[in-house]
Amino acid sequence: MLHGAKKYFIIGLLMCLLACGSRQHNAIVIQTDFGLKDGAVSAMKGVAYEVDPALPLFDLTHEIPAYDIWEAAYRLEQTLPYWPAGTVFVSVVDPGVGTTRKSIVAKTKSGHYIVTPDNGTLTLVAASQGIEAVREIDETINRRAGSERSHTFHGRDVYVYTAARLAAKKISFEQIGDELKQPVVLIPFRQPELAENSISGNIPVLDIQYGNVWTNIPDSFMAKAGIRTGDSLDVQISFEDSLVCSVSVPFVRSFGDVPEGNALAYINSLLNLSLAINMGSFAERYGIKNGPGWSVTVRAKL
Amino acid sequence: MLHGAKKYFIIGLLMCLLACGSRQHNAIVIQTDFGLKDGAVSAMKGVAYEVDPALPLFDLTHEIPAYDIWEAAYRLEQTLPYWPAGTVFVSVVDPGVGTTRKSIVAKTKSGHYIVTPDNGTLTLVAASQGIEAVREIDETINRRAGSERSHTFHGRDVYVYTAARLAAKKISFEQIGDELKQPVVLIPFRQPELAENSISGNIPVLDIQYGNVWTNIPDSFMAKAGIRTGDSLDVQISFEDSLVCSVSVPFVRSFGDVPEGNALAYINSLLNLSLAINMGSFAERYGIKNGPGWSVTVRAKL
Amino acid sequence: MLHGAKKYFIIGLLMCLLACGSRQHNAIVIQTDFGLKDGAVSAMKGVAYEVDPALPLFDLTHEIPAYDIWEAAYRLEQTLPYWPAGTVFVSVVDPGVGTTRKSIVAKTKSGHYIVTPDNGTLTLVAASQGIEAVREIDETINRRAGSERSHTFHGRDVYVYTAARLAAKKISFEQIGDELKQPVVLIPFRQPELAENSISGNIPVLDIQYGNVWTNIPDSFMAKAGIRTGDSLDVQISFEDSLVCSVSVPFVRSFGDVPEGNALAYINSLLNLSLAINMGSFAERYGIKNGPGWSVTVRAKL
Repeated sequence: MLHGAKKYFIIGLLMCLLACGSRQHNAIVIQTDFGLKDGAVSAMKGVAYEVDPALPLFDLTHEIPAYDIWEAAYRLEQTLPYWPAGTVFVSVVDPGVGTTRKSIVAKTKSGHYIVTPDNGTLTLVAASQGIEAVREIDETINRRAGSERSHTFHGRDVYVYTAARLAAKKISFEQIGDELKQPVVLIPFRQPELAENSISGNIPVLDIQYGNVWTNIPDSFMAKAGIRTGDSLDVQISFEDSLVCSVSVPFVRSFGDVPEGNALAYINSLLNLSLAINMGSFAERYGIKNGPGWSVTVRAKL
Repeated sequence: MLHGAKKYFIIGLLMCLLACGSRQHNAIVIQTDFGLKDGAVSAMKGVAYEVDPALPLFDLTHEIPAYDIWEAAYRLEQTLPYWPAGTVFVSVVDPGVGTTRKSIVAKTKSGHYIVTPDNGTLTLVAASQGIEAVREIDETINRRAGSERSHTFHGRDVYVYTAARLAAKKISFEQIGDELKQPVVLIPFRQPELAENSISGNIPVLDIQYGNVWTNIPDSFMAKAGIRTGDSLDVQISFEDSLVCSVSVPFVRSFGDVPEGNALAYINSLLNLSLAINMGSFAERYGIKNGPGWSVTVRAKL
Repeated sequence: MLHGAKKYFIIGLLMCLLACGSRQHNAIVIQTDFGLKDGAVSAMKGVAYEVDPALPLFDLTHEIPAYDIWEAAYRLEQTLPYWPAGTVFVSVVDPGVGTTRKSIVAKTKSGHYIVTPDNGTLTLVAASQGIEAVREIDETINRRAGSERSHTFHGRDVYVYTAARLAAKKISFEQIGDELKQPVVLIPFRQPELAENSISGNIPVLDIQYGNVWTNIPDSFMAKAGIRTGDSLDVQISFEDSLVCSVSVPFVRSFGDVPEGNALAYINSLLNLSLAINMGSFAERYGIKNGPGWSVTVRAKL
């Protein structure tokens, strides 16, 4: 008899733990170029909340410059590795909304999901994390009920709705739709190069809040070139064929290692070579911007 | 005996589920004209969190232009239908804070709650959702303890505190205070009109991030006027008695249906007629703003 | 036998409640000078979420002007009292990142925790709440695995990681590191003074969204000086030794107590004397800014 009570106790306990535990879903992390001045982002969150109130909802940023797919790709790359596997990212920078561009969900080799228009947003994550599988969203199934007459807000009507159902395990990855037949759209970009006595690369993005200039040259290239903390570097930055700035800077660990107002080179938080001015703006002082036309060449000073 | 064990098991299970389930409260969604540069919004969230740490707290926007009650009304209208019934909205655009304007909680016919000063914020939601009941907040009961000497931050001391207690079911709707004796304050606005061979309406708001011009003409009026996707439209926009722009545009599904830089008419995400330029700003090119003085007239081109 | 079943039932119930209840951790509230245009804040939240998905994560503000430690100190002071004891604040305004400045966790006498570089951020909270204990973060233990090569983003690699483990009770306050040997860094600032027939003080901050001027003169000084609501005040504002503005204003409860466009004095939401224009900007009309060089003198008008 006691045996029976024990059994029920254990079954009950497991069911309770299951009831509590089942409320922990994967997180959703949203980025858009909508800004936060209107109600668009909040409407998206309402849709996800209605799918399941227990879904953890987070923002990446909503201040991607309008239509800037490259910056969306970079912000994903900068953030995704800091979220656990299973996290579902929603990226809505979608100049082609309502046209024939595909709506997809990619699964990375790291186990993250990204819901996005297939327009190049996956470029950098594909290179760094690898893409395991991509499915095209079947909108006949995966679309918020009643949204059929709306053609300009897929972020709300299709993307976050699908992300929420995936994160809450109401649909499996397979139920999103068929596998994408063609490869995902990738934006061409310049890889860093290690030459005899110099390293060159691109300026994919600025650290805008502080005016720091970020390159795509990894710290491993610096090590391979025998450059060490404390060395002095000759840096040349060009836009297309024109030299914009030529400057000598110390290669240090952090900003405060040089006096205020001085320029420096350092390894940034994504472990790439970067340029800054302690308590100032390198980008502003030297007139540097970012994008495919910008190149950087670095040499250890003799 | 087994019977007794079973009974306890079932009672226990129900209590556990109740314990877990009871932590799911209604969500709170906050909008203000405070901006996010200071600590005001965070102080409000702290007050709600202290009422009950399990309350789900979300933002609508905090970038309503200072004192702009009309825009607050529009953002509520744009967002509320995407949150489930029971959600408690807090709207603090309150130029009359500390004066005799009433503090109220409205319950819409759709089952949403809105905590707001009675200053016109409910105008558009009242028209679209309908107001079921309105109660005036009794501040002798519904005010954060210790806040009696503060007269300029009702959003923190009264509104979010009351919203949190309502969402966490610590008070009922009736315990907010007496029913409001007079009707809520409504801002007059121009309704859309369907005439013999034209449709006219107002520009309540701009889709500022992209420069799109949103009208209050519903897609049902387009259908009634026999206008279909692919038709060409003559659009005239006036400010008071002056014609500001006269333009012919195709009526299409989405931006990408016309070449980059071309103008178009489309049905926006709230299912109203809107004007845009693919990858550009219609509002900027034609000098269009929004507000009660702006009118739009549309005709199918012969 | 029934007795045995009852016992199991009660044990089971307690375990269930514990399972559910244990998911309620202390909240984390984050402020930075990073802005929200890039992925830095989201990367920080991902790190906290990975430590424990059940941690409630909130923002204070991310729009502290770059490197402005004083404003960080003020925003903490403005917000902390509205969050419950046990809340863990993370403040990352850190011009000295990567140098010898200490990384610390302070516990206030009110029971709040603050994770911050030791650079003056605690100045105002130390004065108002009192500091109970301060520990220096031992980065050999309290650092995200794999982040050893990153020297410019302590906010992500050390601060939020440590805050999350503290809030989730994975480490105790003592496990953060040794007690800080020296006192925390404090920024000197001018205290308010009550003289024979005047009160003087400083302008620590502007209420930027509305252009209101906030002083550090507490409402208790007004009462001690016999000044009451309805009195007329002579106000003089100086920058260093130059008089910037001299104005007579009524001392009222709130903005709407004077006609639109008129100046007024009132007690703000932190219970300090402040100056405003109803529906206008006092700071802009009179050219007032904030900081250590700004002083205010107030007299009851005869």
